[in-house]
Amino acid sequence: MKDEAFIRGQVPMTKSEVRAVSISKLGLCDNSIVYDIGAGTGSVAVEMALAMGHGHVYAIEQREEGCRLIGQNQEHFGVRNLTIVPGKAPDVLKDLPAADRVFIGGSGGELPKILDLVREKNPSARIVINAVSLETLSAVTEYLRGKGMEAEIVSIQTARAKKLGDYHLMEGQNPVYIITIEPDRGTREAGQ
Amino acid sequence: MKDEAFIRGQVPMTKSEVRAVSISKLGLCDNSIVYDIGAGTGSVAVEMALAMGHGHVYAIEQREEGCRLIGQNQEHFGVRNLTIVPGKAPDVLKDLPAADRVFIGGSGGELPKILDLVREKNPSARIVINAVSLETLSAVTEYLRGKGMEAEIVSIQTARAKKLGDYHLMEGQNPVYIITIEPDRGTREAGQ
Amino acid sequence: MKDEAFIRGQVPMTKSEVRAVSISKLGLCDNSIVYDIGAGTGSVAVEMALAMGHGHVYAIEQREEGCRLIGQNQEHFGVRNLTIVPGKAPDVLKDLPAADRVFIGGSGGELPKILDLVREKNPSARIVINAVSLETLSAVTEYLRGKGMEAEIVSIQTARAKKLGDYHLMEGQNPVYIITIEPDRGTREAGQ
Amino acid sequence: MKDEAFIRGQVPMTKSEVRAVSISKLGLCDNSIVYDIGAGTGSVAVEMALAMGHGHVYAIEQREEGCRLIGQNQEHFGVRNLTIVPGKAPDVLKDLPAADRVFIGGSGGELPKILDLVREKNPSARIVINAVSLETLSAVTEYLRGKGMEAEIVSIQTARAKKLGDYHLMEGQNPVYIITIEPDRGTREAGQ
Repeated sequence: MKDEAFIRGQVPMTKSEVRAVSISKLGLCDNSIVYDIGAGTGSVAVEMALAMGHGHVYAIEQREEGCRLIGQNQEHFGVRNLTIVPGKAPDVLKDLPAADRVFIGGSGGELPKILDLVREKNPSARIVINAVSLETLSAVTEYLRGKGMEAEIVSIQTARAKKLGDYHLMEGQNPVYIITIEPDRGTREAGQ
Repeated sequence: MKDEAFIRGQVPMTKSEVRAVSISKLGLCDNSIVYDIGAGTGSVAVEMALAMGHGHVYAIEQREEGCRLIGQNQEHFGVRNLTIVPGKAPDVLKDLPAADRVFIGGSGGELPKILDLVREKNPSARIVINAVSLETLSAVTEYLRGKGMEAEIVSIQTARAKKLGDYHLMEGQNPVYIITIEPDRGTREAGQ
Repeated sequence: MKDEAFIRGQVPMTKSEVRAVSISKLGLCDNSIVYDIGAGTGSVAVEMALAMGHGHVYAIEQREEGCRLIGQNQEHFGVRNLTIVPGKAPDVLKDLPAADRVFIGGSGGELPKILDLVREKNPSARIVINAVSLETLSAVTEYLRGKGMEAEIVSIQTARAKKLGDYHLMEGQNPVYIITIEPDRGTREAGQ
Repeated sequence: MKDEAFIRGQVPMTKSEVRAVSISKLGLCDNSIVYDIGAGTGSVAVEMALAMGHGHVYAIEQREEGCRLIGQNQEHFGVRNLTIVPGKAPDVLKDLPAADRVFIGGSGGELPKILDLVREKNPSARIVINAVSLETLSAVTEYLRGKGMEAEIVSIQTARAKKLGDYHLMEGQNPVYIITIEPDRGTREAGQ
């Protein structure tokens, strides 16, 4: 889905290419229960909700403007299988049903606690994290090392042509690290 | 879908991140008729076929090894809505039903003729091209300029962590240009 | 040299990393005669002039604001071995002494004529081109193909950490193609 | 300088573009005392030595093959102002004269101790670090945070055209983080 399709405010939005890769890494099933933590404008949440017939997306967002935008985008796309959860993770996750897919676009500095809780609620949840800061990237790798876990880590940097007169100038976008944690990977592969 | 999920030979394969972005740009409908031109291992074709309930993918590939691999991947994933079309585009496209979505992963130097034919068969086909060579990129921009057409042009370069002892080294992947042509873009947007 | 060291206006400036790589590719000698075509703010010209004890840099720039900025930067750094040449290449190159090193940061759509003249004046000039648009990149590869010449072509995309609270966000910069033409490469290497 | 100019074994070599940017960030003076820690093939050390008339480079390398290659490259380029220091940093740094410029291409897991010693010997040394692993990047940012220091952090990813028949394919290189520490930056700028 295109970035222009979404209603945006001043809230940062995951760019369409990063959104596509992140959702692809999540490997949504038709009936997945999904958290979108730090949902921002709701672009990832809405695109995930639209992709599932029977699944449900919980969009966690602590900023008021974010919650309002998610609501507007939900309405704009007529999405029913999405619940906006105002508040801060991991606190607000406690009363939600366990997720089997978790996207973390923002963690408010609470990444280890969020990962702990998500994995406690469902040890085999697949988790995809977008890190745009060096500190978040460090927090992820430190967490993995501490738990003796492995994950797929991919960085992606795009550029987009912008017309200037007769010329197409390539405009660089911010690089993003996409980390995918699949706790049951070994098991599933062994079982094939 | 993961790269490791596919059967591969010596044939180059579109990497999972580029595949995810490219398919996202195509905006498949549930019943799209799709060409995958230069289908290679069939990874893009299979992933597109799996994503559509009632659509159909025609995987065009001129190399024998490619056609064999596509067949193996088709069987491996139990995909029914995919037809392998051995031969060279644009020739083999002539007898196929018109496509509304076209992915071009390889054009064998015939990009202008392929684009002409695809657009003649369906002027409103959405077309996504992957260019990994400077010559293909030039051929695309020259074609667009010649026809007075605009397209979205995005470059994407990824790197992937590789474990070496206790260290994660980031290994650079080849950059790819993803060009999206939407002939009816203006119309549709005006009609909203 | 740092970007902040230079006086800048609204004129686009080659970023320090791209400047360092480009000057490195030029392989300046202590007494090189250098053209900087499309000199912009003069950052490349000044850094080259400072690097040479006995060489000379001709900074060609057609915009008045550019020429003014080059002059200010020249004065700021106390550079003597630099001549500002107002006007448009290739015209203004005709009366200049032949260059053995040529940097092309902007060509005003006249790249083939500029390359022809530069090479006519000195067939063994080493030439480094920065291409930020797809059209310039195409023009370079088309020229090389037409002349049966080879060149080194490198793309470079950087990102720079920006402090936001306690976080370092990586901000993407525009990708640049750096093309290096060394007409006498074979000869020199054969002669070693 | 070109990568092909250097004698290489199986030892990893800093690529020419990253070398150019790193040396540029160091801001060598004509008489700088420089450490190259983790000197590898000696490509950075040799290029720095050649750039200075009266300075001196100490190339620290713990692997025997590395030391041998540095020696070969030193001889190949006729470089006199370079001393090979076999052994492991920070231990072998203790008896060396204090450096005012330090390049760290490899730290053998001892980055904090190396930085401590280098800065103890000369609090105003300018330090440039190349990080190719996430762990080294984390170690740098953690060190800086612990000391309340700021640094310039830049990532750079290049791709290089490779001829395949009539096509130029862009081959991705590994991304590198280049971190520049200038302890006296504030002072100098305040003093201008």
